[in-house]
Amino acid sequence: MVKDCSTDTVAQAVREYEGVIRKKVIGDVIRSLRIESPDVVASFGEDAAVIRHNTDDALLLAADGIWSKLMEADPFWAGYCAVLVNVHDIAAMGGRPVAIVDILSVTNDRIRDEVTRGMVTASAQFGVPIVGGHLHPDTPYNVVDVAILGTARMDQIIFSNTAEEGDRVIAAIDLDGRIHPSCCYNWDSVTMKSAEVVRAQIRLMEDLGREHLVTAGKDISNPGVIGTLGMLLEVSEKGAVIDLEAIPRPDLAALKLPFEQWVRMYPGMGFILTAKEENVEEVCHRFADVGITAAPIGKVDGSRRLAVRYLGRETQVFDLDQEGIMRIFSEGGACR
Amino acid sequence: MVKDCSTDTVAQAVREYEGVIRKKVIGDVIRSLRIESPDVVASFGEDAAVIRHNTDDALLLAADGIWSKLMEADPFWAGYCAVLVNVHDIAAMGGRPVAIVDILSVTNDRIRDEVTRGMVTASAQFGVPIVGGHLHPDTPYNVVDVAILGTARMDQIIFSNTAEEGDRVIAAIDLDGRIHPSCCYNWDSVTMKSAEVVRAQIRLMEDLGREHLVTAGKDISNPGVIGTLGMLLEVSEKGAVIDLEAIPRPDLAALKLPFEQWVRMYPGMGFILTAKEENVEEVCHRFADVGITAAPIGKVDGSRRLAVRYLGRETQVFDLDQEGIMRIFSEGGACR
Repeated sequence: MVKDCSTDTVAQAVREYEGVIRKKVIGDVIRSLRIESPDVVASFGEDAAVIRHNTDDALLLAADGIWSKLMEADPFWAGYCAVLVNVHDIAAMGGRPVAIVDILSVTNDRIRDEVTRGMVTASAQFGVPIVGGHLHPDTPYNVVDVAILGTARMDQIIFSNTAEEGDRVIAAIDLDGRIHPSCCYNWDSVTMKSAEVVRAQIRLMEDLGREHLVTAGKDISNPGVIGTLGMLLEVSEKGAVIDLEAIPRPDLAALKLPFEQWVRMYPGMGFILTAKEENVEEVCHRFADVGITAAPIGKVDGSRRLAVRYLGRETQVFDLDQEGIMRIFSEGGACR
Repeated sequence: MVKDCSTDTVAQAVREYEGVIRKKVIGDVIRSLRIESPDVVASFGEDAAVIRHNTDDALLLAADGIWSKLMEADPFWAGYCAVLVNVHDIAAMGGRPVAIVDILSVTNDRIRDEVTRGMVTASAQFGVPIVGGHLHPDTPYNVVDVAILGTARMDQIIFSNTAEEGDRVIAAIDLDGRIHPSCCYNWDSVTMKSAEVVRAQIRLMEDLGREHLVTAGKDISNPGVIGTLGMLLEVSEKGAVIDLEAIPRPDLAALKLPFEQWVRMYPGMGFILTAKEENVEEVCHRFADVGITAAPIGKVDGSRRLAVRYLGRETQVFDLDQEGIMRIFSEGGACR
């Protein structure tokens, strides 16, 4: 099924992928940024920061920018993604996305208009208003940075760092999509969907949080499905072995898409979750109801290493104890 | 008192200032960004968006970026300002700044470290934690974009678009400072102050909102004191005549600072407010208590033009009806 692929080639492809390597400097920056604040329940290492508000409420705040490469290749898709990745950040926490602000730096009016059109398209489709921001109309570079506000009840939040030994790892990806024509590492499952469909997909994460059906979660971002799981395990201080064959995938042969590329792709709608054994079936069923393919792909253990398994062979991808991905912990502090 | 200066030279200097001109494209972008949302009470045209939360609460969300020029000239000050301008955005609304996220794009580690040091310094001084963000470690440009979350009660918010005919215009600026060595258009009154002093200055805006002592307000940003007043009048659909002599200023002669430059400067702590006649004295007194010089400088009228007066002569700076500054209204819609 996973043709022309070995655990070694996949492990290496993920480990050396730019989307993963770029996470390595996060730790240095975070250590210098952190200051103490009693209402900040979670910050770095989570998809969104969690700030306690009026005892039981939580305010979620996240920010994400788009690689300049994408901005120049396809400004419409860059603007669309700027909104999409931020909506994912709130959804991954089990929250409700409320409002977006953007900071746009552009070299010319055409790029400005295309990025804006992309942001507005996603904003309208996902029902999350863009409420303000800042425009640099005449910079020598093109950058779109977006921040998002979300809300949740304190007791419905899905954290990244709460996976426990014995939990099952679930990968959930909407496979009904296409390789985006402007970026071979983007799996676009969203632009062709109705507002109703994508909003139901986002709302499902709120349900999973409220009903405590999962123990931890992250949206699958630039590091891809395996890299994102590595980040979740890193902040949870756990490890896992996953079966490559179990990872949901479209018809790769028809798409002429190597498996090594598929696992590094950023999916338009994808989450990595951990859940107690008894909830795995229900979680996968709920995802199927909103058009997302979810499957258990492995088990959380205490090893602090992430390994991949295929045809009886097992290869380590990350040693999270020695190397880490974000290296948030290398001075010993916990991320919250 | 305002030596070597005429209403004409000041009007022209403000009108043609880059900080003002750069606001002109905002209108075009805003018209394409706006989508309807029932909880969004205010968005574009205000320093921060206002989102209704649990009936009486308001969540404030703003974003601001730093001109690339400053980022290259002095990355520490750029990082510091990135936090400062966002704290101002929340304070200007009468809100309490709660948390910050940043998106940082850097060409090298030195700039990354300096910008981070600047952000952390301001974050610690103002007591607003940086809770997350995104890092592009290897871009061909240097950009720091910051977004901020604030909270307020719905009934304490100070809007920009609520100035009324007959209100007095108050300019409030901390004059105890220096021309910033890296940028002659930045009046730094903050880096040398204690956390206690700057936090009291920010908190005062909350008090003014809660006690309904002002009718409208904005923080003085890149367009300077007159340009910022123009923006407030534009969204309020009002006009004003102000006396140049009344604008608070440091010892310009000692600083060798032309008055035309002073009125275009971005002050480390400065606000433009409007207030009912009977509250002007109290407002100015409160500002004095926290080390900020505040003075009535003119009166709001229905003309939709901003004019400056000096030595009996009056010159129009902006025709807000025909030209506008942000031109948010040029397709007829109100900004909220």
